Amino acid sequence: MPTKTKDIAKFINGELIGNGEVLIDGINGINEAKKGELAFILSSQALELVKSTQASCIVVPKDLNGDFDKPIIKVENPSIAFSRVIEVMMPGRIPHPKGIHPTAVIAKDARIGQGVSVGPYSVVESGVSIGDNTVIYPFSYIGKNAKIGKNCVFYPNVTIREEIVVGDRVIIHPGTVIGSDGFGYDVQQNGTHIKIPQLGTVVIEDDVELGSCVTIDRARFNKTVIGKGSKIDNLVQIAHNVVIGPNCVVAAQCGIAGSSELGRNVVFGGQVGVSDHVKVGDFVMAGAKTGIHKSYPAKTVLFWYPARPADKAREQIAAVGLLPKLFERVRKLEAKIKELEK
Amino acid sequence: MPTKTKDIAKFINGELIGNGEVLIDGINGINEAKKGELAFILSSQALELVKSTQASCIVVPKDLNGDFDKPIIKVENPSIAFSRVIEVMMPGRIPHPKGIHPTAVIAKDARIGQGVSVGPYSVVESGVSIGDNTVIYPFSYIGKNAKIGKNCVFYPNVTIREEIVVGDRVIIHPGTVIGSDGFGYDVQQNGTHIKIPQLGTVVIEDDVELGSCVTIDRARFNKTVIGKGSKIDNLVQIAHNVVIGPNCVVAAQCGIAGSSELGRNVVFGGQVGVSDHVKVGDFVMAGAKTGIHKSYPAKTVLFWYPARPADKAREQIAAVGLLPKLFERVRKLEAKIKELEK
Amino acid sequence: MPTKTKDIAKFINGELIGNGEVLIDGINGINEAKKGELAFILSSQALELVKSTQASCIVVPKDLNGDFDKPIIKVENPSIAFSRVIEVMMPGRIPHPKGIHPTAVIAKDARIGQGVSVGPYSVVESGVSIGDNTVIYPFSYIGKNAKIGKNCVFYPNVTIREEIVVGDRVIIHPGTVIGSDGFGYDVQQNGTHIKIPQLGTVVIEDDVELGSCVTIDRARFNKTVIGKGSKIDNLVQIAHNVVIGPNCVVAAQCGIAGSSELGRNVVFGGQVGVSDHVKVGDFVMAGAKTGIHKSYPAKTVLFWYPARPADKAREQIAAVGLLPKLFERVRKLEAKIKELEK
Repeated sequence: MPTKTKDIAKFINGELIGNGEVLIDGINGINEAKKGELAFILSSQALELVKSTQASCIVVPKDLNGDFDKPIIKVENPSIAFSRVIEVMMPGRIPHPKGIHPTAVIAKDARIGQGVSVGPYSVVESGVSIGDNTVIYPFSYIGKNAKIGKNCVFYPNVTIREEIVVGDRVIIHPGTVIGSDGFGYDVQQNGTHIKIPQLGTVVIEDDVELGSCVTIDRARFNKTVIGKGSKIDNLVQIAHNVVIGPNCVVAAQCGIAGSSELGRNVVFGGQVGVSDHVKVGDFVMAGAKTGIHKSYPAKTVLFWYPARPADKAREQIAAVGLLPKLFERVRKLEAKIKELEK
Repeated sequence: MPTKTKDIAKFINGELIGNGEVLIDGINGINEAKKGELAFILSSQALELVKSTQASCIVVPKDLNGDFDKPIIKVENPSIAFSRVIEVMMPGRIPHPKGIHPTAVIAKDARIGQGVSVGPYSVVESGVSIGDNTVIYPFSYIGKNAKIGKNCVFYPNVTIREEIVVGDRVIIHPGTVIGSDGFGYDVQQNGTHIKIPQLGTVVIEDDVELGSCVTIDRARFNKTVIGKGSKIDNLVQIAHNVVIGPNCVVAAQCGIAGSSELGRNVVFGGQVGVSDHVKVGDFVMAGAKTGIHKSYPAKTVLFWYPARPADKAREQIAAVGLLPKLFERVRKLEAKIKELEK
Repeated sequence: MPTKTKDIAKFINGELIGNGEVLIDGINGINEAKKGELAFILSSQALELVKSTQASCIVVPKDLNGDFDKPIIKVENPSIAFSRVIEVMMPGRIPHPKGIHPTAVIAKDARIGQGVSVGPYSVVESGVSIGDNTVIYPFSYIGKNAKIGKNCVFYPNVTIREEIVVGDRVIIHPGTVIGSDGFGYDVQQNGTHIKIPQLGTVVIEDDVELGSCVTIDRARFNKTVIGKGSKIDNLVQIAHNVVIGPNCVVAAQCGIAGSSELGRNVVFGGQVGVSDHVKVGDFVMAGAKTGIHKSYPAKTVLFWYPARPADKAREQIAAVGLLPKLFERVRKLEAKIKELEK
């Protein structure tokens, strides 16, 4: 439904400069936008884009100045404003399944909340509870006694094993597995292994988002935890008994080994590894591919393999780059000393 | 159906030396082949294998000389010749599902081409189009309005979300996910995150092959692209807005972060990582586990973490190996200088 | 069913000290255990936990001494004893599907053993055989002519392609793929690639456990092998023609490239990579993130990227940490020599 620029400005608490009656019927990137669409820029340095875009209205940061031939809306944080606009102007944007499909196999004693949707060919086992308005796509498996919160979205091919607990507003992308057995064996004298039963569970707290093909193992005892509001990208491995605090951001292909803990608001680039039984403090940041093999206190910035504080890492990486020259310098010194010793 | 050696030679444009009437009824590796089977060698240095194999006919490179007690076929490229022979002699080699299984849930308005096969328990949503002769195995999900080309094969448990575009002759192995949301959040002052809507799509061009459990995220705006003829191995992560050029070869467990671009014919070993917003030029090669954190021009050969040109990497890796000795040499120099200073 | 401490002691060949009539009705971690539950400690140094736990009986190592206010059971290996107790006291602990669900699509000529369970919406193709008591969860695909042993458990969304062989007592976690095409192409002069047919298979030997989203490719010829009793963690990539010996332990996100071989009882930490055509000897151990690019003999302990023996790696990593200081020392030496030369 087309919306007037003045109404959009009001909704996002922005200051409208220019014509408030222009009708907006779509949202797009600043480079991709066409006439009639709304776009945005993150920084006032993108001024040129505001002039060149085909968009009919642009959401900009407060400190942008200049004269423009189309309406602009100034806000504190254009990206957040933009997300809000999309929610309102494109409410049914993602075509989730609606209702319970007749082919869904749902145990009689499962408690299914109001407005829950379950796509074709999903399986919900005995004792499961699913909160209101949760959406489950096809080929998802919810194991016995699992408790799923409300307003969740589980995309296709998600596997949740027995006894797992998932909070409210959790989004799980396709192919993700929660509650597979932790990887634990006792070695016997003949070199074979006995599987250690994994009796614990997994708790996914509210507002978590899990990417595609994420694997989260159940605890040996007690629980593996993904803290409230944490965001886990595709192909991440979370081992048994790991505890991830709230608001962490873990990029793709990271692996956290058994019993390690991340504090709150930890941020990892892609392919980071954390050894087992390690504590990573609050607000720690680690660059892509960092290998964290021991505990680090809050706010440390880490890089390299094995990890070290990023400033040390930078210095040492530069030094390694100069190593061949250093060998040459030492060779010269050795020659000179030989000369001097004569 | 048994085929005469002279007919095989003709089909692959090869020069037959020896008996053209020998019947071949199977194809195998040079070490595994039995009587009646065809085998091949890639290099004329594998002469001994030609003598020892049980195969009844061997495809060899043009420059192989010698006398043999069985027919051989000389060709420019034995590996390519071999692949062609397999196509012809073993046409139904992979037992794909045939026809539309009655349990497939296909939206009424989906446009399904001629000769399309859809296995049991697959779901094809509204507005989807599927080109002629495409094969879809069980438990695959094709989201709303997705456009799938002709002669594709999607193995089981493949998830294609809404609006995705897939070209012709695309092969997708099991568990792969196309079009999950890009990993993007705005951080708020209280440390929580607001999800950034991902409005874009993914385009998989013609002749692409995607391995198992590959994850390809949809763009924030516009599209994530896998270029024509590119081959992506298992467990690879392709983030939102990545553009991969044509004919790239990306080995298993690589990760390409958001908005990065690969040119044409880029070749990556396994577990390579590419940071976000980086441009990797045409024909760049990177060894296994390389961590590419900045842009590199065409034809660069890269290695190590962080990446550097492979010749530099080799030199520096060797230098690191000699470091403990260098420390010893410097210690000796210091002692000698102390001596000299006296 | 509650069990007396004296009966538990007898079953695990342990020495009971204290009251043999105490009823045990559950099993838990030493920190989590409540009254009525059995717990264990691995080392006699955990003495304090024996005193503080709420558990009603504790399994302890033989060398633990002291007076306790509750029954303890002394055994050689408490962890193995514990696993055995769980098997006996909690036999139906994991709620596997029972029987053949009417929605399972099973080819008429498939040979299904006694006591086999197949969950809803699984597909078993023509020519498949499944051994007695094997359990197959929903959304699993067993391709044509695959041979599955007895007493296996395949969790949801497992894909086994045609002709694959799986032994007895094999556990496969959700999302795992066995038998996808090996990653092989011939490059043509114009830069495009021709797919090399992968005619071989995969053999998973007895007592193997495969984690979630593991990918194991079929061989070009012959077979890819996972040896008897080997344990493979989540998100591991096994390329075509890899041969893994018996009793190996491969942690999450490792990748083994084409045609490489691991001997017996090899142990890898997470995110290890092995290049193609490499031989890793028996009992080799490699720390997390190690990049193995060449062959190593039996019992080598490896670390770092590129890999080197762990003692060398430690020495060199320490040296790199001191590099900036070494540069400073060399600078001083150069200045002093300049001084001396005057």
